[in-house]
Amino acid sequence: MVKVGIIGAGRIGRVHITSITTRVPNAVIKTVADPFLTEETADWAKSMGVEKTTKDYKEIIEDPEIDAVLICSSTDTHSPISIEAIKAGKHVFCEKPIDHDVDKIMEVIKALEGTGLKYQVGFNRRFDHNFQSLQETVAQGKIGTPQIIKITSRDPEPPSIDYVKVSGGMFLDMTIHDFDMARFLAGCDAEEVYVQSANLVDPAIGEAGDVDTAVITLKMENGAIAVIDNCRKAVYGYDQRAEVFGSEGMAAISNDSQSTTVISNAQGVTGEKPMFFFLERYMDAYGKEITAFIDAIEKGKDTPLNVYDGLKPVLMGLAAKKSSQEHRPVKISEIMGE
Amino acid sequence: MVKVGIIGAGRIGRVHITSITTRVPNAVIKTVADPFLTEETADWAKSMGVEKTTKDYKEIIEDPEIDAVLICSSTDTHSPISIEAIKAGKHVFCEKPIDHDVDKIMEVIKALEGTGLKYQVGFNRRFDHNFQSLQETVAQGKIGTPQIIKITSRDPEPPSIDYVKVSGGMFLDMTIHDFDMARFLAGCDAEEVYVQSANLVDPAIGEAGDVDTAVITLKMENGAIAVIDNCRKAVYGYDQRAEVFGSEGMAAISNDSQSTTVISNAQGVTGEKPMFFFLERYMDAYGKEITAFIDAIEKGKDTPLNVYDGLKPVLMGLAAKKSSQEHRPVKISEIMGE
Amino acid sequence: MVKVGIIGAGRIGRVHITSITTRVPNAVIKTVADPFLTEETADWAKSMGVEKTTKDYKEIIEDPEIDAVLICSSTDTHSPISIEAIKAGKHVFCEKPIDHDVDKIMEVIKALEGTGLKYQVGFNRRFDHNFQSLQETVAQGKIGTPQIIKITSRDPEPPSIDYVKVSGGMFLDMTIHDFDMARFLAGCDAEEVYVQSANLVDPAIGEAGDVDTAVITLKMENGAIAVIDNCRKAVYGYDQRAEVFGSEGMAAISNDSQSTTVISNAQGVTGEKPMFFFLERYMDAYGKEITAFIDAIEKGKDTPLNVYDGLKPVLMGLAAKKSSQEHRPVKISEIMGE
Amino acid sequence: MVKVGIIGAGRIGRVHITSITTRVPNAVIKTVADPFLTEETADWAKSMGVEKTTKDYKEIIEDPEIDAVLICSSTDTHSPISIEAIKAGKHVFCEKPIDHDVDKIMEVIKALEGTGLKYQVGFNRRFDHNFQSLQETVAQGKIGTPQIIKITSRDPEPPSIDYVKVSGGMFLDMTIHDFDMARFLAGCDAEEVYVQSANLVDPAIGEAGDVDTAVITLKMENGAIAVIDNCRKAVYGYDQRAEVFGSEGMAAISNDSQSTTVISNAQGVTGEKPMFFFLERYMDAYGKEITAFIDAIEKGKDTPLNVYDGLKPVLMGLAAKKSSQEHRPVKISEIMGE
Repeated sequence: MVKVGIIGAGRIGRVHITSITTRVPNAVIKTVADPFLTEETADWAKSMGVEKTTKDYKEIIEDPEIDAVLICSSTDTHSPISIEAIKAGKHVFCEKPIDHDVDKIMEVIKALEGTGLKYQVGFNRRFDHNFQSLQETVAQGKIGTPQIIKITSRDPEPPSIDYVKVSGGMFLDMTIHDFDMARFLAGCDAEEVYVQSANLVDPAIGEAGDVDTAVITLKMENGAIAVIDNCRKAVYGYDQRAEVFGSEGMAAISNDSQSTTVISNAQGVTGEKPMFFFLERYMDAYGKEITAFIDAIEKGKDTPLNVYDGLKPVLMGLAAKKSSQEHRPVKISEIMGE
Repeated sequence: MVKVGIIGAGRIGRVHITSITTRVPNAVIKTVADPFLTEETADWAKSMGVEKTTKDYKEIIEDPEIDAVLICSSTDTHSPISIEAIKAGKHVFCEKPIDHDVDKIMEVIKALEGTGLKYQVGFNRRFDHNFQSLQETVAQGKIGTPQIIKITSRDPEPPSIDYVKVSGGMFLDMTIHDFDMARFLAGCDAEEVYVQSANLVDPAIGEAGDVDTAVITLKMENGAIAVIDNCRKAVYGYDQRAEVFGSEGMAAISNDSQSTTVISNAQGVTGEKPMFFFLERYMDAYGKEITAFIDAIEKGKDTPLNVYDGLKPVLMGLAAKKSSQEHRPVKISEIMGE
Repeated sequence: MVKVGIIGAGRIGRVHITSITTRVPNAVIKTVADPFLTEETADWAKSMGVEKTTKDYKEIIEDPEIDAVLICSSTDTHSPISIEAIKAGKHVFCEKPIDHDVDKIMEVIKALEGTGLKYQVGFNRRFDHNFQSLQETVAQGKIGTPQIIKITSRDPEPPSIDYVKVSGGMFLDMTIHDFDMARFLAGCDAEEVYVQSANLVDPAIGEAGDVDTAVITLKMENGAIAVIDNCRKAVYGYDQRAEVFGSEGMAAISNDSQSTTVISNAQGVTGEKPMFFFLERYMDAYGKEITAFIDAIEKGKDTPLNVYDGLKPVLMGLAAKKSSQEHRPVKISEIMGE
Repeated sequence: MVKVGIIGAGRIGRVHITSITTRVPNAVIKTVADPFLTEETADWAKSMGVEKTTKDYKEIIEDPEIDAVLICSSTDTHSPISIEAIKAGKHVFCEKPIDHDVDKIMEVIKALEGTGLKYQVGFNRRFDHNFQSLQETVAQGKIGTPQIIKITSRDPEPPSIDYVKVSGGMFLDMTIHDFDMARFLAGCDAEEVYVQSANLVDPAIGEAGDVDTAVITLKMENGAIAVIDNCRKAVYGYDQRAEVFGSEGMAAISNDSQSTTVISNAQGVTGEKPMFFFLERYMDAYGKEITAFIDAIEKGKDTPLNVYDGLKPVLMGLAAKKSSQEHRPVKISEIMGE
């Protein structure tokens, strides 16, 4: 039985609390820490079987009984708390991104060296039934050599402008999931990034120095071309599709809906919209990623997404940012060289 | 080059005039006859390359240059004109049904005996790309032994009450196409019919002694069970689907639409309705059935739908009528025995 | 917190144990009883948080702490244990069917009278996201007045011949779910049943006195015609679809698959098969039905499927059996009159 | 009645001969010219009602009876014959591209000035039922302001290496249709092109100096971003899809197939592949484009695709070529400035 501490009891922290208590039989949550912990959240956590709640995450770091820490706090705390937890000998599950700053991720990597501790990054989409099936189809060679990879990723609504300002920009906040997906589907890293971006959804996003719409072209190391299209707002819901085209065929996944109901009437033939947002679409994937993390600890296996899998999409995001600003293709090696 | 005379220049007659002039290179229309021929129709026929128009169909029957006759006049004239044409040594393409009266169809059969003339009945759906593909799939054994055959056939709107009164009833007018399709898909005849019917669309149809909604169960000679569902009115258009389930799988066809356009918005994910009615859906099939008829004449082959294929669905229609009236399963042999 | 005892720890009993422990926060399982309880099952139940296991279901009936009983034992025990539990003052959730014998169901109804106890029957499909959405669409009037209801229900593989012999026949064992669904979708009862059935899957089923393939036509009280098609074996998996056609449109649901992956290659465009069988397809629905039962107890509401909802499909099943044997339409009132 | 001469009786010339004789009632083909005219082709043309065949296209240019010329000869002859025909006072329908050389297209434009003659370029896809419906949906504002336009265009098999060498390169030969489609769907011109291309299908294509796989990003004048993905070989057939995403929704079109047949068996749920290639997919569109051309002549209307619509995609193709060679985004204005 793995004893877990969860740092951060916001939206995603609560998702993990629910997953562990209802779906992960070989883990138990000892402590939940959140600096802004409300009484309501504390009560709810206890009703879910959490032993202890606190405002001070150090109580988790310093607790010798706790084997693993889930870092669900704000992005700027991910790398420092990762290092603290590693130094205290704890396995770490860290929400994405580890950091916006490559140097800080390098420090986490250094801290991990030789410890034998497990480190997993929260790219939940790899655990989604559709993306998982698509990746397996490609990996099994069913479509031959991948040549074109297409990822559509559109949110139902933009975040608040306050969030946009601290988000690191769309490429590090939103596209980072798609960068991970491109690596997952291609089975290799990207060499180069080109971005065509625009501010079409809300002028305030542009005023905050960010974009809200983009088409990102990637040259992958295996020769395939990947293309991601993003928008911060799709009125029909969370649009999460992908397609891999290869020498022997194409595999494609479409969106999930709440039901398969289709109504035919004088207006047309109408099915349901995609599930609204990530909590609806990926709830099951969140459970599976934590299950995989706990299993890696229990069975001494590698985590499915290690610290380098956390680093690479950040490099791609920084290259995308540079491409968008300098309006030219940017090599990943340029970012690593800096 | 086969010389053709067309009797009846109504809706379906005009469809055949268009097909022959634009799609059947080895046929030419010499004469079109219609007792109610308007000047406008005559002009149009001539613009399509028809040599001659007349109000008297005898000019076709008696014309020694004419090889084949298409009978597109009202149902009550189908069998007598068939016999006249056969006696004049002409091949006959006859719109469905040959007659509502089995005895009259038997007279046509007798007239044909020993003549070597071709006779084809206008069950156009057999030439539709979807139904054809479904039948081939089944005939090639791709779904194993057929066990359940399902046919959905719903019109977008009911005919006029005046038409209902002379139509012979829904089973002989509308379901007759589905009876033919059940035979086509099963590759055998029906043994027994059971009807559950209702008058749900328009009370005037009930007052005219007919039904407008029905589920018809058929026991086929090969042991398969077929089920047809009909309605005279589907607000979303002409619904023409089928499914054959067998020991090794299932094959199903869905409706055709004007385009594949799908719109996703806040209301849902909406595709186009099925094509409106038979002229839209089956235009291509009408061309193919006439091509097949002309080819059978030119090459001395059997027609794909002979006079017995015209008789069988009438027997099934009469059994359905009896089942509906007597509220019990009715064997086809009961009808033949009468 | 509702205290629950579960009688029967076979396949379906284990499903309910899992649902309650992981998904129903306001219920706790005190005791699980099964006459053939293995040590392995007992250990597993305890690992799931079950307090006590026993071979004697009387320990549940006689335990004053237990509020509610789930009857998941063999069909012949459903009605007697229901009565025992009711007499002991316990709410009852009973797997379908309550009994094959109408008189025995009537005894359960009599036992319930005046007790105020909740009684729910396990027609799990009503809680499936697709069927639920379809029913809501119809109930909200979105397709107008229902005219034709079509239910396809095919199992991936037939049960063992030993099971077939004690199953009560396909209509009471398998079609009973579809009879419930016809009532659910139509919003009313059936008046009459007609069956066309066959033994096409396995001769041994016929030798055991049962059928394995059937098309069942129902006349519903609201004038709609319903049609169910069943087969004990579909090589492509568990086929669970439905369609309701009405005066203002049609609503239809299709199967769920493990993923939306579609592969296009030289052979065609191939998607996944339907989910394999009921445990895959309806796992979520099993959780929801128990949640609803516990909620009804806690909040003093009606259960969504009461004892009469358990009786009606049995009447329909018996009528179907009679129709199949006597080869004629059978009224439900004939069965009730017996 | 418009009298037409057709120059070039290869594959596409024969398509237009067939369309005009079977589908365009207000046009008649007087002469077909082809330097390599075989007796077989001449016989076929005559059987289709063509009055005259010749090896010398001058017989068309110099025939005062001929109103309009269809130029279906090799690409290098398009612009010179266009000019000859215009000078002889004839309306011109010219297959794409008018020329690979912008200066030569400018000469055609100059020749047309002040003549009042109609000039139409053969971008047939605009007349396809799916693309037409998509464009109308967008133009009617049903998806709000277009933000992302996606076009997938993949051929079933690459052309011969001999053809590749004279094709002008993939961007001017194949992508040119997609460049036209981007303009059609966006309702405006492109400003800038960026290409990520590769040689993945056949090394011989690379040796011939061309690419066979590409993702092309376009910045459109209205702010939308368009992205085209191309491949010279898709094993599953001709892949022609598009999607327009906007502020109020998304509209998408998928491929057409020969039938809607779907087979469910132990291997999966399999539908038909897309139609094999352009002759299958766009046969109807070829008829419609000629109908539109003849109508423009008869009614004195503008042609739906004039000489500038022929120029713009060539500019885009040249910019794409430059982008591919120089590996940077290229503005259309750079090409025009040269």
